[in-house]
Amino acid sequence: MARPDGRRPDQLRPVTITRQWSVHPEGSVLVEFGDTRVLCTASVTEGVPRWRKGSGLGWVTAEYAMLPRATTTRSDRESVKGRVGGRTQEISRLIGRSLRACVDLKSLGENSVVLDCDVLQADGGTRTAAITGAYVALHDAVTWMAGKKILAGKIEEAVPRSVSAVSVGVIDGEPRLDLMYLEDGAADVDMNVVCTGDGDFVEVQGTGEAAVFNRAELDALLDLAVGGCMTLADAQRKALAS
Amino acid sequence: MARPDGRRPDQLRPVTITRQWSVHPEGSVLVEFGDTRVLCTASVTEGVPRWRKGSGLGWVTAEYAMLPRATTTRSDRESVKGRVGGRTQEISRLIGRSLRACVDLKSLGENSVVLDCDVLQADGGTRTAAITGAYVALHDAVTWMAGKKILAGKIEEAVPRSVSAVSVGVIDGEPRLDLMYLEDGAADVDMNVVCTGDGDFVEVQGTGEAAVFNRAELDALLDLAVGGCMTLADAQRKALAS
Amino acid sequence: MARPDGRRPDQLRPVTITRQWSVHPEGSVLVEFGDTRVLCTASVTEGVPRWRKGSGLGWVTAEYAMLPRATTTRSDRESVKGRVGGRTQEISRLIGRSLRACVDLKSLGENSVVLDCDVLQADGGTRTAAITGAYVALHDAVTWMAGKKILAGKIEEAVPRSVSAVSVGVIDGEPRLDLMYLEDGAADVDMNVVCTGDGDFVEVQGTGEAAVFNRAELDALLDLAVGGCMTLADAQRKALAS
Amino acid sequence: MARPDGRRPDQLRPVTITRQWSVHPEGSVLVEFGDTRVLCTASVTEGVPRWRKGSGLGWVTAEYAMLPRATTTRSDRESVKGRVGGRTQEISRLIGRSLRACVDLKSLGENSVVLDCDVLQADGGTRTAAITGAYVALHDAVTWMAGKKILAGKIEEAVPRSVSAVSVGVIDGEPRLDLMYLEDGAADVDMNVVCTGDGDFVEVQGTGEAAVFNRAELDALLDLAVGGCMTLADAQRKALAS
Amino acid sequence: MARPDGRRPDQLRPVTITRQWSVHPEGSVLVEFGDTRVLCTASVTEGVPRWRKGSGLGWVTAEYAMLPRATTTRSDRESVKGRVGGRTQEISRLIGRSLRACVDLKSLGENSVVLDCDVLQADGGTRTAAITGAYVALHDAVTWMAGKKILAGKIEEAVPRSVSAVSVGVIDGEPRLDLMYLEDGAADVDMNVVCTGDGDFVEVQGTGEAAVFNRAELDALLDLAVGGCMTLADAQRKALAS
Amino acid sequence: MARPDGRRPDQLRPVTITRQWSVHPEGSVLVEFGDTRVLCTASVTEGVPRWRKGSGLGWVTAEYAMLPRATTTRSDRESVKGRVGGRTQEISRLIGRSLRACVDLKSLGENSVVLDCDVLQADGGTRTAAITGAYVALHDAVTWMAGKKILAGKIEEAVPRSVSAVSVGVIDGEPRLDLMYLEDGAADVDMNVVCTGDGDFVEVQGTGEAAVFNRAELDALLDLAVGGCMTLADAQRKALAS
Repeated sequence: MARPDGRRPDQLRPVTITRQWSVHPEGSVLVEFGDTRVLCTASVTEGVPRWRKGSGLGWVTAEYAMLPRATTTRSDRESVKGRVGGRTQEISRLIGRSLRACVDLKSLGENSVVLDCDVLQADGGTRTAAITGAYVALHDAVTWMAGKKILAGKIEEAVPRSVSAVSVGVIDGEPRLDLMYLEDGAADVDMNVVCTGDGDFVEVQGTGEAAVFNRAELDALLDLAVGGCMTLADAQRKALAS
Repeated sequence: MARPDGRRPDQLRPVTITRQWSVHPEGSVLVEFGDTRVLCTASVTEGVPRWRKGSGLGWVTAEYAMLPRATTTRSDRESVKGRVGGRTQEISRLIGRSLRACVDLKSLGENSVVLDCDVLQADGGTRTAAITGAYVALHDAVTWMAGKKILAGKIEEAVPRSVSAVSVGVIDGEPRLDLMYLEDGAADVDMNVVCTGDGDFVEVQGTGEAAVFNRAELDALLDLAVGGCMTLADAQRKALAS
Repeated sequence: MARPDGRRPDQLRPVTITRQWSVHPEGSVLVEFGDTRVLCTASVTEGVPRWRKGSGLGWVTAEYAMLPRATTTRSDRESVKGRVGGRTQEISRLIGRSLRACVDLKSLGENSVVLDCDVLQADGGTRTAAITGAYVALHDAVTWMAGKKILAGKIEEAVPRSVSAVSVGVIDGEPRLDLMYLEDGAADVDMNVVCTGDGDFVEVQGTGEAAVFNRAELDALLDLAVGGCMTLADAQRKALAS
Repeated sequence: MARPDGRRPDQLRPVTITRQWSVHPEGSVLVEFGDTRVLCTASVTEGVPRWRKGSGLGWVTAEYAMLPRATTTRSDRESVKGRVGGRTQEISRLIGRSLRACVDLKSLGENSVVLDCDVLQADGGTRTAAITGAYVALHDAVTWMAGKKILAGKIEEAVPRSVSAVSVGVIDGEPRLDLMYLEDGAADVDMNVVCTGDGDFVEVQGTGEAAVFNRAELDALLDLAVGGCMTLADAQRKALAS
Repeated sequence: MARPDGRRPDQLRPVTITRQWSVHPEGSVLVEFGDTRVLCTASVTEGVPRWRKGSGLGWVTAEYAMLPRATTTRSDRESVKGRVGGRTQEISRLIGRSLRACVDLKSLGENSVVLDCDVLQADGGTRTAAITGAYVALHDAVTWMAGKKILAGKIEEAVPRSVSAVSVGVIDGEPRLDLMYLEDGAADVDMNVVCTGDGDFVEVQGTGEAAVFNRAELDALLDLAVGGCMTLADAQRKALAS
Repeated sequence: MARPDGRRPDQLRPVTITRQWSVHPEGSVLVEFGDTRVLCTASVTEGVPRWRKGSGLGWVTAEYAMLPRATTTRSDRESVKGRVGGRTQEISRLIGRSLRACVDLKSLGENSVVLDCDVLQADGGTRTAAITGAYVALHDAVTWMAGKKILAGKIEEAVPRSVSAVSVGVIDGEPRLDLMYLEDGAADVDMNVVCTGDGDFVEVQGTGEAAVFNRAELDALLDLAVGGCMTLADAQRKALAS
């Protein structure tokens, strides 16, 4: 099975990072990995949840969701079903942990940032696009906080490293970078990797969806993923510089 | 109080209707009334809900929702709260009724259309923008159904009239068309009017938010609203022609 | 189609307003519009919700509900279903807004009144009967508050105007006042109008259930409704005088 | 502590049983034990729940609820809280079991009866009043079924015995019949007893609320309760004869 | 029908009470009535719920639950269903009331004890085993509190009496003690009795599941139950002494 | 920081696998990793969920939960809170995926197995103990199915490989196997690894809880984990042989 869009196995889809996509949030980024399109907003509140008060530390959390018709067939809304599904919560938790890995909560001061990642259109890799875009939205929000003089440290202390993420998988024995929806369903092994801009790991989540995998396959996937994350880190840097 | 954006009392904000904004839905429209931005998608399913089977009639329903940071301050997600709020349900029901007013359910055949109206950015008039955009998405979906040969009648029989909506209100004694968020909060009387392209009424909902209103005021507001709806009907026609 | 109970098109059903129907509430009114029977109670609490504290203003809110067998066939309880339906919330909100229109929240002082409108038997017009009865219960509760010396102003300042409501609709082209259940289902256009005792509008909600409607029809319906509300205001005055 | 209303320890409050209180239900009874006022309706549906189909047996179930201001202070609605409380469910289950004890499900045929017991006003003994009233509503519903020829047996086979209930308690060492709300809170021991018209037991639920109790006290309470139930059975008989 | 395990009608199943079954709780008891196996833990928190603060009184509450496969066929989890069933709440309330009957809340001081009774394996009598085991767990927790010097009185003042419970029922006309699951389903009358170690009653709950019962049957059941509770009180005493 | 129980960094805690711990389930295993104690039951149902019918494939799913006082302080029950938390769902999904990796759904035939993993006592590694125990319970259930002749293939075809899991982490720079609760909180990096009995990977989930990690650290953790899983596979084999 060739890649549906003709990419090389180690090639990302076209990545677009649009800052200030909406007018209200302190950080607002529309990130696109091919047809996957996620709106990442960062909302700043002064103060932290009650259990954190007086700690001198800030708080960063995330919520992921999908519009009902982001996908090829319509899904019921979780608000209407009255409960947030396991997959949604799992991804929200992953995004939150990943973003907390790139901030220094002490330098943030006792402020909270909520990262909302709403998938407007889905074609695989929505969680990794969300992490990649949320980092840029978070950086914009921290810059906004610096302008408001509510940051306890400097911007570069509050966000000492960048974070990006990409999916990799094995299809017909071939390790591939940045899977599309069609590839996702065909993958024997599926892995999401979150890296810092320095190539260190923040999260590694690999699943043998339809097959088990050995150490050599794992190594090949990790190599691919780190390469992809480095390219994404570059795109983030350029977006923030523009 | 002058209008925040310098408009005349009887002037709409700039209106943009972008069709095929996303790739998956049968109809997908991004509608903008100034800074208000709503993604309206139409999802077609063959068949109707169980209680309707064998009737020969189709079904059209709508769901309205707002992204958490569509507004100036972040709201909690209804999925996380575990229940859909009264305002949300009320607007969903209004959109559903309004759109059912412009279709002939018999010509639709036993097919269902769900209209999802997700507010990506809010600056007043989200429900009226949603109705205006949803009409275009619905028309595109019906055209798609005609192409799939699952429509029981012709396109112009299934959607015999257009429908659009606009808000009007009284501020400092002055009737105004298409209120922005800042005006919304300052209005003594607030009214949403849904009209067909022929200027007939589909829904009239007027509320004395901070004052009661007399027949003369009601008449002035209705005049303004019908005028606005006619302009919107024109914009819908042009969008569908392009 | 003649009216099922032989009324003239502009005639209300027999209206009964029984005060002090139950012993515990500060205001308790059983209101009957023909076979429609709603128990409206007003519960006073000193103090206001947290978000309102220190404002010097009172608060009035309403909850509408229907007993499961108020209707011809039994409906499931919303408590058992675990969620309050859209229709219920919409009506509760309408009653709350309407009743707030007849009180001066400053004269109320920092006190809260909850109006519970429970439909014991339904035959159309339950929401308009509820508003009409709730006004009388509210007036009784305010009088009780005056007796307890917890009112910030005088009774006539706290409730400077009365409010009543009636439904109107078009059936077979004929505008009719105060629809029964059988007529409700047959109406092409259905409108609920809330008026003050002076004939000013508080709310106007008109829906083309099965047809659109033009300005002339709207005008005819408004005329009918204002007339009906004036008669109801009279009945309220008599009930409060007795 | 004398009884608040001056009754003898073994005396019931005035009992009123009003049949056909509302127009829609197949059986509809307003039962009053002093100020306690419960609307009991019986709703018949042809057919039984899925798990019972083909058994040849009918089904009887009950739901108990209280209006928010049935009590001296207002309680939040369970529909708004989104869950039915433990006390409510416990009482609903008790009423259902008690009423099933007085019917022959085979003679009922494959039909269902739901007994809704809504407390309009509460002054102690609401569950026992509910059972007492629900029996009469059930009997009326069975008579209605006989008229519709959907009963598998005769009326007297389908409801071979009557059922009534009363509360008893020990206050300051004195066993008392049919406790009012004020007495309820003061009782050391509190018991609800459900009996057939022949004086057999259907349910006995005794609780040492604030004290334990010995066999002699238990015996005295049971004697009182059986006497009370016999008087209630008489009142039921008279109501059904009228 | 002979007893499935060959017991005499007045004979308990083998009873085992294992203290300190788990390491974390302040009291932890695995109680077994034959194949029925309930883990009862007592969790102590300093302080009481808000509504109780400053009263000088402690608080004891209980929660009962069953593992999904404690029974012969698997039941869905109440956490997954999103609501606690009526039976579960009813039993939790019964256990809480029963355990409060054996403590002196004043001597407890302003401390809270939660008794969790989780049925690991069910074979009838789970609620009575739970009460019997929870008493021992509560006693251990109170002893722990004494060691921590947070008790307001002495241990023997805080737990002045023991409490145990057993089920009894009538099967084929024969009164039997401590019903197994198979007998439970076959019983015409089913009763749960909670007694103190002195033979006084705390709760008596008798239900004519499939038949009504007369005073003589009730008396026979109460005799059996009191005898069983005395044996259980002995087993509790021995367990606490070891 | 030395290991709290004096183990070598690459040493598992004592592992106990007790089969047939309870009488009702088709497979029932109490697994202990030190003080962590999980009851894993396998429940077989003939037939599969509706969406799977006619596929010829079986289904395996899992639910993980913790008793409220399995931990050092009591947690509220998810059934009482009315929603299953994100962590619980995430672990349930992990266990389900892991167990599906060791069965051949075709050989299972159209039968379903639910694996319930209830943590009776927690001291770190509850999810890995659950997977390790659930495999044995599943194997017993499949053997039971073979006895009932409802398996489509042979036992060794239906469960062609074993699966076990263990946690690893970095504490003070030292990679350690099978973390206890105290170590869990102190770990900079935390990883759960699920392996087959042949040493292939099923799942790899690594998180930089308090720090990022490089490739060398990842490699060291994977080595440790595979070693641990091989020892666990051995324990499983012995348990199944006994």
